[in-house]
Amino acid sequence: MTTEPFRVGLLGHGTVGSAFAQLLAERAEAIEAEVGRRPELAGVLTRSRGDFDDIVARSDLIVELIGGLDPARAYVLRSLGAGRHVVTANKQLLSQYGEEVFDSARRNRVQLRFEAAVAGVVPAIRVMAETLAAAHIERVHGIVNGTTNYILTEMTRTGATYAEALREAQQLGYAEADPTEDVTGKDAAAKMAILARLAFNAVVRLDDVICEGIERITPDDIAYAKELGLSLKLVGSAERVDGGVAVHVYPAFLYADHPLAAVNGAFNAVTVESPAITEITLSGPGAGGMQTASAVLGDVISAMIPPPSLPPPAVSHPIVTDVEFSFYLHLEVADRPGVLAQVAEILGLQGVSIKSVVQKGLGDEARLVMVMHPVLESKFRAAVELIARLDFVREPPRVIRVIEETF
Amino acid sequence: MTTEPFRVGLLGHGTVGSAFAQLLAERAEAIEAEVGRRPELAGVLTRSRGDFDDIVARSDLIVELIGGLDPARAYVLRSLGAGRHVVTANKQLLSQYGEEVFDSARRNRVQLRFEAAVAGVVPAIRVMAETLAAAHIERVHGIVNGTTNYILTEMTRTGATYAEALREAQQLGYAEADPTEDVTGKDAAAKMAILARLAFNAVVRLDDVICEGIERITPDDIAYAKELGLSLKLVGSAERVDGGVAVHVYPAFLYADHPLAAVNGAFNAVTVESPAITEITLSGPGAGGMQTASAVLGDVISAMIPPPSLPPPAVSHPIVTDVEFSFYLHLEVADRPGVLAQVAEILGLQGVSIKSVVQKGLGDEARLVMVMHPVLESKFRAAVELIARLDFVREPPRVIRVIEETF
Repeated sequence: MTTEPFRVGLLGHGTVGSAFAQLLAERAEAIEAEVGRRPELAGVLTRSRGDFDDIVARSDLIVELIGGLDPARAYVLRSLGAGRHVVTANKQLLSQYGEEVFDSARRNRVQLRFEAAVAGVVPAIRVMAETLAAAHIERVHGIVNGTTNYILTEMTRTGATYAEALREAQQLGYAEADPTEDVTGKDAAAKMAILARLAFNAVVRLDDVICEGIERITPDDIAYAKELGLSLKLVGSAERVDGGVAVHVYPAFLYADHPLAAVNGAFNAVTVESPAITEITLSGPGAGGMQTASAVLGDVISAMIPPPSLPPPAVSHPIVTDVEFSFYLHLEVADRPGVLAQVAEILGLQGVSIKSVVQKGLGDEARLVMVMHPVLESKFRAAVELIARLDFVREPPRVIRVIEETF
Repeated sequence: MTTEPFRVGLLGHGTVGSAFAQLLAERAEAIEAEVGRRPELAGVLTRSRGDFDDIVARSDLIVELIGGLDPARAYVLRSLGAGRHVVTANKQLLSQYGEEVFDSARRNRVQLRFEAAVAGVVPAIRVMAETLAAAHIERVHGIVNGTTNYILTEMTRTGATYAEALREAQQLGYAEADPTEDVTGKDAAAKMAILARLAFNAVVRLDDVICEGIERITPDDIAYAKELGLSLKLVGSAERVDGGVAVHVYPAFLYADHPLAAVNGAFNAVTVESPAITEITLSGPGAGGMQTASAVLGDVISAMIPPPSLPPPAVSHPIVTDVEFSFYLHLEVADRPGVLAQVAEILGLQGVSIKSVVQKGLGDEARLVMVMHPVLESKFRAAVELIARLDFVREPPRVIRVIEETF
């Protein structure tokens, strides 16, 4: 039995749109295996090609990645009106015309999903709507703009001025030629308005968000932050206050143990506080075509089939027990010539390559601390076993794995 | 029109069970407003009271919080067999009899949800099953045991030995009288088996996980980690290797920029890596009765009604614009007597209380850097406006907000 494909109409074919089309094609088979229907592109609308009505007629779901208000708003409303599910990444639309769009989806009994509108692939929307459906949320803090977080991270790392860091961000594609929306905090404000709507079930429009950007931040401010053990971030906050709701975007100093303090570069993160859960923090890449496309595709799958409560039947995978790790090796040895050479020889014979080594004399003894390049565990363990038997090794070798950041 | 209540049968009334019963009662009204049905406790089974068959007969959904294999396994299978949805936090059951339980749920066409089985309130299960349904997951790293993370954090913070830190954890209730399951890595192994099942769709049983605990970690290891800018954590890893799957639990050094490096105390965190998404990290409290109960209640709500794609209709909330913040104030002033006194007086008249102040002479000039206790923004701004007009203030005052960790 062949089931009908699930037809997806795509509006917009920029960075995210083209990444989405590619990802959909790549993952169609795996998605069919999992949810029982194959998603397929029914049509693409760009400025120069495609007909909107025709695409809607041939689609089960519309993905809107045009952005901005016009014509995106009309297209979304017409798609919903025609009984199509809609997945969108459009923060402007949702922060300015959210109620109109939500009401239309509700009236037309179709799904409207928008995970990619806030914090890229970080699943803030879904976690608030589902995991925290039971929680009384008190406050949301977010780093929801990757451009400004990249600029502030660079200012902190290199001591650069705001203008220098902005220029670098523009050269690397982290900031647009006109960075106004990002650096004034307006982009973050739109996202905080959406998060506040979900957290408190309150209508918060973009204009309600009190907003301050990073243009006036100086290297001095950052130097002080460092001296005080603080980090400076552009933070969005939404909280319940006196029976109402307050939503702000502002540069803020964070104490080192705040969950947002360690969010660096173009990453985004959202912290949700509630008495029952204490706090949950979600972090990940805030932008990037493929990352945002991945969030959009997650929404498409959820619209195809209600999220499963069960994993699909398992398929057979061998369990691999011997894999590569980086290792740290700590040896207490007699302090005499040739010790390091012998240890290094044994490691070399097993194909273990040393990344760094520190030797410290301690009277008659010495301490050798080494970190290895990744190596198959069995080879490293064989080498350590041989090393442990050397007569100058005074105590059992200590071995601990080392995990390096892969990105 | 009154709809039927959604009847929840509760098996187990320990720390999590009693917290769940309390939370359900507290949130019943809000849940009814949101999903249209009121959840209510249909019965509670403890060792000394309640009848299992009677509770199943009177319930739409069974929450299993007994833990362990016997009798939890039989109760879960009988509940599913009777056509009841099941929500469980039972990591032993899922890591050892997961396929049996999943198959039964599938055959009986009911939901089986288990967010609370891994990493407490951190929504790792849901994010993998839903947000990342589209992603090809390559690797999962997790700090999934709060007890060992607390012990390692304390060893790092105070230089204590393993035995000392364990004793303190036991006194504070972070470790059990018999800590074997936690400190040997067995508890983490069960959770990693479940995460691997979801990430790779592979059957991974508890015995397949290669496991090393923290009992042999010394203050020396930690001191070296500090010196090298690394932090030592008990890490679970699950990854694709050569067409198979490898799952480990081991103590590991993490570089400072690894997303798990800053996860301290009894917190848990999970990092999921996939080419399309780069990486997502989720963190939050790993245990605690109320936190785990909150994860269970989130699952109950999802079983009551498929997760919504839309927020519910908004209710009216005033937007509050003047709220309390902590502020940092930076003043460049002439270096003459009475300057600090005048600034302090103006702040005091506006009700602004100074938390800390640093004054630095710079030739004729001086720099005053102050951090305030939380104060209504309008009052602080009024004070700053007055301060800016003082004749000894040489440059416009610089103001930045400070966010303190609330937990």
